[in-house]
Amino acid sequence: MRSTPHAEAFPAHTPAAAQVFTAVLSHGPLTRLEAGRRAGLSAAAVTKAVRPLLAAGYLAEGADDDARPTPGRPAALVRVNGERALFLGVKVTGGELIAVLTDLCCRIRVARRRPLPDRAPGPVLASIAELVQELLAHAAESDAPVAGLGIAVSGDVDRAEGVVRYSPFLDWRDVPLADLAATTTGLPVTVDHDVRALTVAEQWFGAGAGLADFALVTVGTGIGCGLVVHGRVVAGAHGVAGEIGHVVVDPAGPACHCGNRGCVEAIAGESAIVARMRAVTDRHVTGVTQAVALARDGVPGAREVYERAGEAIGRGIATVANLLGPERVIISGEGLAAYDLFADQIRRAFTTAAFGSAARCDVLTRPLPFEEWARGAAAAAIQSFITHTPGTGQG
Amino acid sequence: MRSTPHAEAFPAHTPAAAQVFTAVLSHGPLTRLEAGRRAGLSAAAVTKAVRPLLAAGYLAEGADDDARPTPGRPAALVRVNGERALFLGVKVTGGELIAVLTDLCCRIRVARRRPLPDRAPGPVLASIAELVQELLAHAAESDAPVAGLGIAVSGDVDRAEGVVRYSPFLDWRDVPLADLAATTTGLPVTVDHDVRALTVAEQWFGAGAGLADFALVTVGTGIGCGLVVHGRVVAGAHGVAGEIGHVVVDPAGPACHCGNRGCVEAIAGESAIVARMRAVTDRHVTGVTQAVALARDGVPGAREVYERAGEAIGRGIATVANLLGPERVIISGEGLAAYDLFADQIRRAFTTAAFGSAARCDVLTRPLPFEEWARGAAAAAIQSFITHTPGTGQG
Ligand SMILES: [Zn+2]
Ligand SMILES: [Zn+2]
Repeated sequence: MRSTPHAEAFPAHTPAAAQVFTAVLSHGPLTRLEAGRRAGLSAAAVTKAVRPLLAAGYLAEGADDDARPTPGRPAALVRVNGERALFLGVKVTGGELIAVLTDLCCRIRVARRRPLPDRAPGPVLASIAELVQELLAHAAESDAPVAGLGIAVSGDVDRAEGVVRYSPFLDWRDVPLADLAATTTGLPVTVDHDVRALTVAEQWFGAGAGLADFALVTVGTGIGCGLVVHGRVVAGAHGVAGEIGHVVVDPAGPACHCGNRGCVEAIAGESAIVARMRAVTDRHVTGVTQAVALARDGVPGAREVYERAGEAIGRGIATVANLLGPERVIISGEGLAAYDLFADQIRRAFTTAAFGSAARCDVLTRPLPFEEWARGAAAAAIQSFITHTPGTGQG
Repeated sequence: MRSTPHAEAFPAHTPAAAQVFTAVLSHGPLTRLEAGRRAGLSAAAVTKAVRPLLAAGYLAEGADDDARPTPGRPAALVRVNGERALFLGVKVTGGELIAVLTDLCCRIRVARRRPLPDRAPGPVLASIAELVQELLAHAAESDAPVAGLGIAVSGDVDRAEGVVRYSPFLDWRDVPLADLAATTTGLPVTVDHDVRALTVAEQWFGAGAGLADFALVTVGTGIGCGLVVHGRVVAGAHGVAGEIGHVVVDPAGPACHCGNRGCVEAIAGESAIVARMRAVTDRHVTGVTQAVALARDGVPGAREVYERAGEAIGRGIATVANLLGPERVIISGEGLAAYDLFADQIRRAFTTAAFGSAARCDVLTRPLPFEEWARGAAAAAIQSFITHTPGTGQG
């Protein structure tokens, strides 16, 4: 099917080697000393870990891609050789696929979008395969092998098994997506929860870089949350974690698709806002763009819909802060487009519900387009590659 | 003041050494290979870490305290030499001090209780000092030095600074307890949040042993929660974490001392149950023993008070499970005495509110008397000793 060169296995066979590589990837170029400090390892352990990675070309010495030493910096800097391998990342939404081709440094080379006319597993898989072929054609322009494909899906996703257990927006149950996509594309495939994949990208390159404990809250169709605790993304013993969308903030509130009432998502998710806007304004509201317009136009009752959503989100964030005490909460997602409509309520509800010093947590917003989510999927694939744990037996 | 031998510094100057020691402490005796596997370290790293600990007598070879090799087991087992150092642990409740003297393996040698007639910092400190003197007299019977004192207090406790920022049950604000107790006792002092200290003991020796992710929920005067994520107790960036008691389950519910309404603690904490029982039965209820009796006697409305409390606790536990996906939730605390009155509601509310596979989390109950909480305080002191991070400059 494809003829790009095959990537040999990543020559890091200890957790220490993967840690050093990840430290250089997210903070590099670094001296061996800095890499050791960030990975919590001795100089000897770093030297041992770095040697085979340099030999195989995954790491290089020198400050930049030209390998010219930068004046004033020591010559012994180690950096990731981005050209050494390429990765693909695909984010699946209810209506669209967003895909990127990245290098080993997770820098985006090409990005593509494609509408998703049918959400059944078969057609989605066919669309993924077409997008992958298109990006593999771009990849073939360089000598670097494509070493993995990451696919990010919302819902209950078992990354270790590569199975989408339940995705409400796609209406999927127990789809072995990693195996299916590996068969279709011939690539090692990692399937991850979309918000967790984005959290990996934020941890490596974004607003979570250098933080041991942070939360990423995504506001949009669903309300999701990625958690980093003690420097690692929380995956949950059974694959469920970060379900801030199903924190109940009002047991007398609207019914949620999870079976409970008054979940954050049942009040602040896109379809909840649209439904409520319809009921309150008695107008024909078909989507969130219209809902935002009604609120901005000052239509009676429309502002309150967003204020109520903001309060629910703020209370959900406070629950995360009270349980985990993160250093920072990053708010992102398509919902940020309406942020001016509920920012005050989010902050007020957070401050009111945060317990004691938990209120000192730094809450900030950060717009991340879907290409960044696809980049998160590529980051998950890179993670699997460097730790030898793809979500499928293949590769 | 005291004449027990002084403990020299623990000869482990790397995180690896502390990890190996902790692995042997909680799972030992272990071969070096097993210790390395549990600590995530190479055989060479274990050998290097173990050598100075053996030389200084903190570790010993052989399967048991007699150092006789057990038939059928390899001779190279490493174990903690419990006799090498002693520790004190004190749990402070609103009405009582509970103290233990333990060895380095955190085995209790002596336990003592003492009523607390006055909750002001001065009198509490004086009572702690008296209990400590009493236990130091026992300690003096052996040659081992007393290497640290742990004090466990509920509320907002900053372990790193050794300060009790806010304790509602003691009515303390910003009490530098570690410094004060170090001055009074002459010992290195670690002050920790009581539930977190108990969580350390459960992680090392209890129902959390061997689990990377679990939660300990304590039901009693307050509703607390200790969280272990990725193998480490969550402390919170600003000292607040595990505040399950202030998860809001009913925004229209009773007022909570934290300023919000309908927190788990405002419905299921002891004083909330007593107050509600008074209102519902119109009887003079002075304490939880009476409240339990009314419910068991079938007094109209009394059962419902516990059922409502059980539902609040179950929903709080589901929130923890939905956000963190622990392998296990351990329910403990004095409130277990009434467990038959709300066990069904806890389980039902948990199952209903748990999202997808999060419901697969193993929820169990485990009675832990206050001596175990004091042992948790001693475990916190042992932890500070082996990682060189006491909560005070002294020692
Ligand atoms: Zn829900
Ligand atoms: Zn509260």
